[in-house]
This record gives sequence, C-alpha cells and structure tokens, in this order.
Amino acid sequence: MMSTAAPLTTAFAEAIIGSDPRRDLAAMEAARTAVIDFLACAIAGARDRTTGILAAAVGAVLPGDAILIGSARRTDPLVAAVVNGYAGHVLDYDDVHASVRGHPTTVIVPALLALSAERQFSAETLLASYVVGLEAMARLGLSLGSKHYENGFHATATLGTIGAAAAICHLTGASVQETAVALGVAATQSSGLRLQFGYDVKPYHAGMVARSGLLSARLATAGFGGAPDFLDNPVGFHSAYSFGAERPSAVTDNWGGPWQIVAPGLTLKAYPCCTASHPVASLGIDLNREGLRADAIETITFTYPPGADAALVVSKPTNGIEARFSPEYVFAAALIDGALRLDHFDDQPVQPALMALAERASRRHDQNAARMSSDPNTRFVILDITLKDGGTITRRFDGLPGLTDPLEKFRNATAEDSAFTDIPSLVRSMSSRADLHRLVALLSQDAIKNHI
Amino acid sequence: MMSTAAPLTTAFAEAIIGSDPRRDLAAMEAARTAVIDFLACAIAGARDRTTGILAAAVGAVLPGDAILIGSARRTDPLVAAVVNGYAGHVLDYDDVHASVRGHPTTVIVPALLALSAERQFSAETLLASYVVGLEAMARLGLSLGSKHYENGFHATATLGTIGAAAAICHLTGASVQETAVALGVAATQSSGLRLQFGYDVKPYHAGMVARSGLLSARLATAGFGGAPDFLDNPVGFHSAYSFGAERPSAVTDNWGGPWQIVAPGLTLKAYPCCTASHPVASLGIDLNREGLRADAIETITFTYPPGADAALVVSKPTNGIEARFSPEYVFAAALIDGALRLDHFDDQPVQPALMALAERASRRHDQNAARMSSDPNTRFVILDITLKDGGTITRRFDGLPGLTDPLEKFRNATAEDSAFTDIPSLVRSMSSRADLHRLVALLSQDAIKNHI
Repeated sequence: MMSTAAPLTTAFAEAIIGSDPRRDLAAMEAARTAVIDFLACAIAGARDRTTGILAAAVGAVLPGDAILIGSARRTDPLVAAVVNGYAGHVLDYDDVHASVRGHPTTVIVPALLALSAERQFSAETLLASYVVGLEAMARLGLSLGSKHYENGFHATATLGTIGAAAAICHLTGASVQETAVALGVAATQSSGLRLQFGYDVKPYHAGMVARSGLLSARLATAGFGGAPDFLDNPVGFHSAYSFGAERPSAVTDNWGGPWQIVAPGLTLKAYPCCTASHPVASLGIDLNREGLRADAIETITFTYPPGADAALVVSKPTNGIEARFSPEYVFAAALIDGALRLDHFDDQPVQPALMALAERASRRHDQNAARMSSDPNTRFVILDITLKDGGTITRRFDGLPGLTDPLEKFRNATAEDSAFTDIPSLVRSMSSRADLHRLVALLSQDAIKNHI
Repeated sequence: MMSTAAPLTTAFAEAIIGSDPRRDLAAMEAARTAVIDFLACAIAGARDRTTGILAAAVGAVLPGDAILIGSARRTDPLVAAVVNGYAGHVLDYDDVHASVRGHPTTVIVPALLALSAERQFSAETLLASYVVGLEAMARLGLSLGSKHYENGFHATATLGTIGAAAAICHLTGASVQETAVALGVAATQSSGLRLQFGYDVKPYHAGMVARSGLLSARLATAGFGGAPDFLDNPVGFHSAYSFGAERPSAVTDNWGGPWQIVAPGLTLKAYPCCTASHPVASLGIDLNREGLRADAIETITFTYPPGADAALVVSKPTNGIEARFSPEYVFAAALIDGALRLDHFDDQPVQPALMALAERASRRHDQNAARMSSDPNTRFVILDITLKDGGTITRRFDGLPGLTDPLEKFRNATAEDSAFTDIPSLVRSMSSRADLHRLVALLSQDAIKNHI
C-alpha cells in the first residue's frame, strides 16, 4: 500500500507528464490528421438517432460549459465526454490502432474537448496531450497481451479510460503522484465487453470511458485518495485483466521512440464498418472494378489466422448495425455496389440481394499460421471464390487497408453542413488558444439538432 | 447475436421481474433491518470530508429531483446515486453478504433512492425491489466462483452494477427483453479492483456502480440496443470475469427459495472496519474484558485458511483509513480500548500505542484447511498469543460476528442529529407511497451540510 514502492506505475506517470511531443513534427501532423478523421466521424455520428437517445439518458440538458459536437447547447463536461465519445464511434468509422487493438481517438479527444471551452490552453497543447494519451493507451495494450481481448474485453473501453486519464493529466499539469492515482482510478473503472459488438452499447463504451478518464483525473487532482501502484500491485491491473499474458515492461520501454501515433501509427478507416472486415471490403471493391458479378459466384471462403476474426461476431446480420461486424455482408456489399457507404450500415434491415451473396460465404482458420497479435504483420486473409462455371479466384490481403488523408471522408461525412467546411484547414494549422476557441466555435454550431 | 437463444440470461431476467417477495415476511423484515443499518452508515458517512470532495467532483450542484442523504439539496439522479452510494460505504461500516463477498445494500438502495422522489411507488415496492436486486447480485456472485475476487476484483462493484440494474428493472416494471439488455449494459460496466482497498476509491466503487446500474436500466428502457445474452454468450461475462471457476446454474437455481437476504443473510457490521477483520476484533474485545493487558504480550499470531485475509491488504497502517484493512491494528485497538469506534478508523494518523502492539502480530495460513469460499463455514481464524511470562493463549473464531438489531448503531451513528431519530421506526413500518415520501423528507433535511 502506501509504503510499497511502485516503480512501474511511477515511471509510467513520469513519462506521461514529462513528455513533450510538440517538438516531433511527424507526431503532431499525425495528430492533426487523426483529429480531422475523428471529427468527420463525430459530426456524422451526431446525426444518428441513437445519439439522441444516449444524450437524453445521460443528461445532456444539464448545465455546463462543455460543447456537444454539432449543437449550440453546452452541458456538463462529464456528460459531454459521454455524448461526443459516443458520436465519434457510433458509425464504427473512426480510427484504430494495432497496439490498442481498438479505437483510441474517439475516447481521448472527447475527454480533452470536454475541457476545451472552460480551460485556457492552446490547440498545440491539446494535440500534444492527445499524442501522450494515445501513447499511454497503446503501450498499456502491448503490456496486457492478447488474451485480454480474446477472453471478451473491448480494449477501446478497458484501455481507453486510462488513455483519457493520461491525456487529461498531461493537459492539466498534474503531479507525478496525482497522475499515478488518476491512472489507478481509471484502471478501477476499466470495463467493456466485446459481447456488445453489433449493438448501440459498443459506441457507448467509447463515451463511457472518455467520461471515466476525465473523472479519474478530476478526482486525483481534487485530493481524493487512490492506489498509486495499479501496475505494480501483485493483485492489480494485470492480475485482473491479462490472464497471465502480460508484458509489463512494454508500458515504458522506448516510450515515444517513435511515438505510437507514428509507428505503427493509426489506421484511418476507409469504410464505415469493423476494421477487421476491411481487407475483404478492399478485395470486394477490387473485384467489382474487375467486373466480377455476384451471380457468377458459387461459394466464397475467407481464411484467417487464428483470432483475426474475433471482432467479426456476426455472420447473418438482420440490420446495418449488425452488418458492420459481418465480413460476409461487407464483402457482398463491396462486390455488388463497388463501394461501402454509411447507408450500408444504418439501422435499416439489410438488403436481401446483398444477403443472398453473403450467405454463400464461409470462414475457416489456418491453424498453421501465427495467432493474430498486436503485431500488424500477423493479420491476413485469403479469399477463395469458386465460380459457377467451375473457375476459381484466389486473392490475399496482408495487414489493413487505410486512408492517408481523411479530407474527402470529412467532406462526405459532413456534406449537408457547410457550417463545418473550414474545420480541416483549421485543424491542419491550429496552434494558439485563439485557434482552439475557433475550433470550439465551429464545432458547437447548432447544425444537427439531435442532442435533445 | 440477435438470433441466438439466450436461455440463462432470459431465465435470470424473468426471475428478476417476475418475483414478488412482498409475501415473504422474513425477507421483508430483513430488508427493513438492512435499510436501517445502511442509513446509519450513510448518515454518518455523509459527514465524511471525502464525501464532500466526491460530491463536488461528480456534480452534486447539478439540478434534479433526487435526494442527497443529509442535505436539502436535490440533484440529478445519476449524481445522487454516486454520492449516496459513496456515503454508505465510506466508513466501511455497512453490511456484507457471503454470496456476494462484498457489500450489496450500499449499491442497491442508493440506486432505488435516486428515483424515490421523482417516481410514484410505495415503500413496500422499494423494499421488494431491494430484495430482488440483492438476490440477483448474490446469485451472480455464487455463479462467478472465487477466482474473480482472488485475482483482484472488488465484488461489491463488479456485481453491484448488475444488482442495481436488476433492482431498478423490478421497480420500474421493465419487460423481459429490456431487463436482459439492462443486465448486459450493467455487465459491460462491471469494474472495480481490490487494489483500491484502503483508499477513498474503495467507497467510490459503491457509488460508481449504483450509478451505472441505474443508467443501464434507463438506457435499456429508452430503446437503446444491447446484447441480451451476457450470461450465455461464450465470449461473455463469465469468460471475462470467472477465470474458469464459473458455475452458471447458480444464477437461477432455487431463486428465492429461500431469499438470499434470509439465508445465508446479511452480516451487519458491529465494527467500522473491514469485515474480514471482525473475528479478531471480537476476540480482542473478549480478551480486554477478561483483563489481558497489552504489555503482557510477547507475540500474536493469526492463522487463517488460505484466502480468508485477501481483503486485509494492510499490515502497518499509517492512518485510520488504511487501518480498516489491518487485522493487526484492529486486534490491538480492540484489546487495548475494549471497543472499536469510528474515530479508530478516521483519516488521522494511527496512535503509536496501538501500533506498538500491532507490530507484535503476524499472520500465517493453514494450508490443510479448505480455501475460503462463499460458504460462510469456510471462514475461521485461530489466535495464538505468547505472553512475556511464558504463558500462551489460544482462541478460535468461526464465521463472522454480527449485529441482529442495528438500532443502537443507528443511534450512535446519528447522535448529533435529532432530525433523524424517527427513521428506524418509520422504516420498520413503512408500506405506502406516503410512507416513502415521509422517509425521503426525513433523509433530505439540511442537517449535514457537506454536499457542497
């Protein structure tokens, strides 16, 4: 307890508050790209019907200074963190990171935005705090090992609360002791189960932990007492969440060298569905362009390494929300329509024509391949198609497809609202406090009217 | 997913909403006793300095209809659930239940109280919903097995969110489908680590999950989509939290026969410190009455079955908060002072005279004894004292000491406030809506002035 040394938690806290990624241009550019991509998702997601349900349930009518993206309403910061985190993830279109094995930005940025109207800090400080929060979240993901995810936890949530707390501690200049305590308060709020994939609760996870990370930092800096040793205590975070697969030194080894946002870097989603389905989406679009027609296909087989389709919990979706987690549906839609649009994955019933092809697909696992891990090189899929004329097609995709520039995605996602047009260029160049206030003003225009 | 049958989760939901414990007089009497004991703890806890810090951090100034115990202020129900749950547990003086391996009442009652001013229901319905929530929480504890707690989880929190959601679903007449979804939303918010024992964060766990359980029911009944199969999904609650020790049938087998509040029943705490330290507290008080003096003692040894002192994470406390989790300190204070008072366990430094004796104590484990489990018969402690004159004393305590009537405890805990005098007799007899409104009025007198 108090008297026990906690070298790893202390080193982690020191790294979080002692880092200054502002000097690393590659990291800062990657952060700007990530924020633009996140805002594309969150502005589109703010329109979702379920965002309104969530906003009402968590109390968006409560007073406060924090912004709700796409609304002129201000609310309590803890509430804003939930709603904006939800909006960023509801379309499952936001970035992913291999070390996290989940979605970091839709947790960390909403936590930081919750303080952006109230506190005095610069846009550059916000970006740097985001880089640090992502670093903390990614390194903790590496340290947990793969059983955490495989046994049922949704790493976006379980790691996100700690990443958000780290970002807020960096932003607010917390002490080492306060940061160690805040991380422990965040760890004790670490939850989120993959069984919610395909339901509204999955994006709630992102908002839930944006809030809990913010609250953790607030409690610790208010003098609330908490364990300063969540990584060192033998009955601590790893004992509860790692299932024996932990590698604690990954928390701090090579911290920031390079920053995790630079290498392995974020994958920006080209398609509004679960990342693990993107390789077959890419192959489907390719085959559409090559002229392959659905009615020529007899069977489709996807071969994955063990564990690579763990997130793809649906084979026969009934609506677009579930369809985000079905590689069978994703491939069918990509092949037939040649593109994957937001309306392929909304809460309407799936189209029978797409399901007719999806039902010809099956999955298998290559037991000789290495189990998929946080190493991006362990991810692949082999597509085998048999044609009605007896022919066969075989394709392979290694790693993940992704966007490098989210500008067109931003334009598409926000097309109905010219109010948001200036945001990408502002985020590309923003630096001062005035710049951040300008961003806050653009985000809190009353454009969407879905937050009660 | 949607198409998968979920027989266990469905049966659990049906049991929760289909039960009517109002006809069981023993259960209802036990519920009244538990509520009186809880309110003693919460009224005393509302005065704690840290309750004010927590209340400020979570937003007790926000508007709403929900009561804060000991304050005339009304606040948002989600906020009230956090603050009242915290107040009930901050002194670690509230009841425990062996099947839960933790504190059920300080989670479930605050969730129910959060709706008590706003909604129209009777005192009898509140008590019945509490019995059902406790049943759900206790049965889930039995189904999880013992590794959950041993590997680091604080069952008060991890099970509490689900118990609170169950109680609220029963109270509000949710459907089977809504209840199954609410339980899954609660499960995905299931967190809380034992490494926080001895810190302010431990009681925060109780409030945190009173809130999350309430929110879970609110989301599910608002049409928010969630997994209806948290107990059936192979990558679900048990996969994440049981470490292979689950016994799923315990969730519904013999539901309500008898009610868990009747057998094994609650243990009301006679002393304001961790339950697991109570056997040595009782032995210490006995020896004080028999005239044993501290300066006659050479060494003290406690022999526990494996696992029985898992919660007792402190041996050398520096202040009274930590001392709640130290059997060495608890025995020393009991032996020297002949009683254990709230001021033995406040946030002041521990008294050197007590520590001088505590430092003569050590612990060992009887590796031939059965590992302590949720079966109360597996708990014991053997006390061996060697005296400076060469003599020895040996005592054994099986199970836990406890109170049967909390009336004197209530009077002591609330002595400064005559405002609360009428509460025990009201709780003993309350039945109607008017009775519940009378209780709400008594609890929300502006007596304590610590909630901002």
